[in-house]
Amino acid sequence: METIFVIKVGGNIIDHPDSLNQLLDAFAALDAPKILVHGGGKIASAIGKSMGIEPVYHEGRRITDEATLDLVTMVYAGLVNKKLVAALQSRQCNAIGLCGADANILLAQKRTAASIDYGFAGDIRSDGVNTSWLIQQLQNGICPILAPITHDGKGQLLNTNADTIARETAQALAQSANVQLVYGFEKQGVLRDPANEASAIPSINRSQYEELKAEGVISGGMIPKLDNAFKAIDCGVTKVSIGYAQHLSELINAQTGTQII
Amino acid sequence: METIFVIKVGGNIIDHPDSLNQLLDAFAALDAPKILVHGGGKIASAIGKSMGIEPVYHEGRRITDEATLDLVTMVYAGLVNKKLVAALQSRQCNAIGLCGADANILLAQKRTAASIDYGFAGDIRSDGVNTSWLIQQLQNGICPILAPITHDGKGQLLNTNADTIARETAQALAQSANVQLVYGFEKQGVLRDPANEASAIPSINRSQYEELKAEGVISGGMIPKLDNAFKAIDCGVTKVSIGYAQHLSELINAQTGTQII
Repeated sequence: METIFVIKVGGNIIDHPDSLNQLLDAFAALDAPKILVHGGGKIASAIGKSMGIEPVYHEGRRITDEATLDLVTMVYAGLVNKKLVAALQSRQCNAIGLCGADANILLAQKRTAASIDYGFAGDIRSDGVNTSWLIQQLQNGICPILAPITHDGKGQLLNTNADTIARETAQALAQSANVQLVYGFEKQGVLRDPANEASAIPSINRSQYEELKAEGVISGGMIPKLDNAFKAIDCGVTKVSIGYAQHLSELINAQTGTQII
Repeated sequence: METIFVIKVGGNIIDHPDSLNQLLDAFAALDAPKILVHGGGKIASAIGKSMGIEPVYHEGRRITDEATLDLVTMVYAGLVNKKLVAALQSRQCNAIGLCGADANILLAQKRTAASIDYGFAGDIRSDGVNTSWLIQQLQNGICPILAPITHDGKGQLLNTNADTIARETAQALAQSANVQLVYGFEKQGVLRDPANEASAIPSINRSQYEELKAEGVISGGMIPKLDNAFKAIDCGVTKVSIGYAQHLSELINAQTGTQII
């Protein structure tokens, strides 16, 4: 099979109609088997607030309680996912919106830890990605659009990080195809200076990553994203790119953004 | 292909955990190609109320304005649909939750009428049901679970009555297979006396229907349901049954409920 593209798009893109439309145009135009994984953006918090659902934290970490799980299931797997699918269909892209329970594509287990109860947070099981069904759809020209919700196979939906879903899906597909993973977000790439978009680092290997982390150049939310990126490379994904979601074709062709090597 | 079952389940069943679990047990146990079409129940109204979304009426008819469309998309295609899918997966039923935009399975057009603006209400187009994709899934043992949301192919999601979706899907599939349509709800069947569950009419043909309608025995919400049922029979659906959703196998075998003949 030709190279499969797994493209993660962050919440900041979803929130802005102009950048979202550019991303959707670029995704629809990409002539290859492709999967989109999306986050939710601020709309979940806004809807939660209007419903009186307050975020729950434990030692600084957001906890997925039952009300929050219902909220993200509604907003991510319902509102955001179906609007993306309808928008892609209008671009002649035959999209299908799914969460991990659908066709059992992403089987997870509730995260357990000694110190913290994460609530309904799920970690994808080894062999938890139903690659055969996904590949069948891709071969039929259908593009799965994945919301960041998984299930445990026992009737429980679970909240799973979208970056992680993109990595796990890419890794699993890499067992039987070339896979390119793209983390599209609202920045030019991995920035040397967070205030300067022109400071994107064109390529980064693991030892450079460790150095930049030690220096404090890479910090915060970029750390789990890069951890996912390097893990994907280690697990057989051919290429990983990070950069502006809207510049999808340039990212894929390494003309912009940061390439993980 | 063996007989395909299209099973519509009403909102009242969705609202009650006991009846819902019985329905899901019976659906999972049905050893045949099968599709479930669901309504939303009271939860959409309750969530809408908590968000301050007020129902909009025009000349006594509920209008789907933009806020209501977002609400039903979230609740029906998100919360209700994904909970049903996860619950069926736990019963070893390989369900896939979909709205009409997904894989372009239900293409509709916005309803237009001279007198009333129905808002974002959709009528399924002739040839609007993507039967080839549905049949491929059914042949792979996958059970589509359809939320009552369609799309117009131009990027707009639309609200479509679940009874109608069930009928249109059944009719379209009937062009290439035997199809049995079941309208499952909270009553024993078409009742001669609405106050008496024992008064279900075992079978009804069109002339009997017209008589009972003229006598006022059949009225209100049963009229569009029976109109759908007779239309399905006229359009090639082999059997239509109406009755307790939970008694699915008995309904299918005409041991209970009302059979449309």
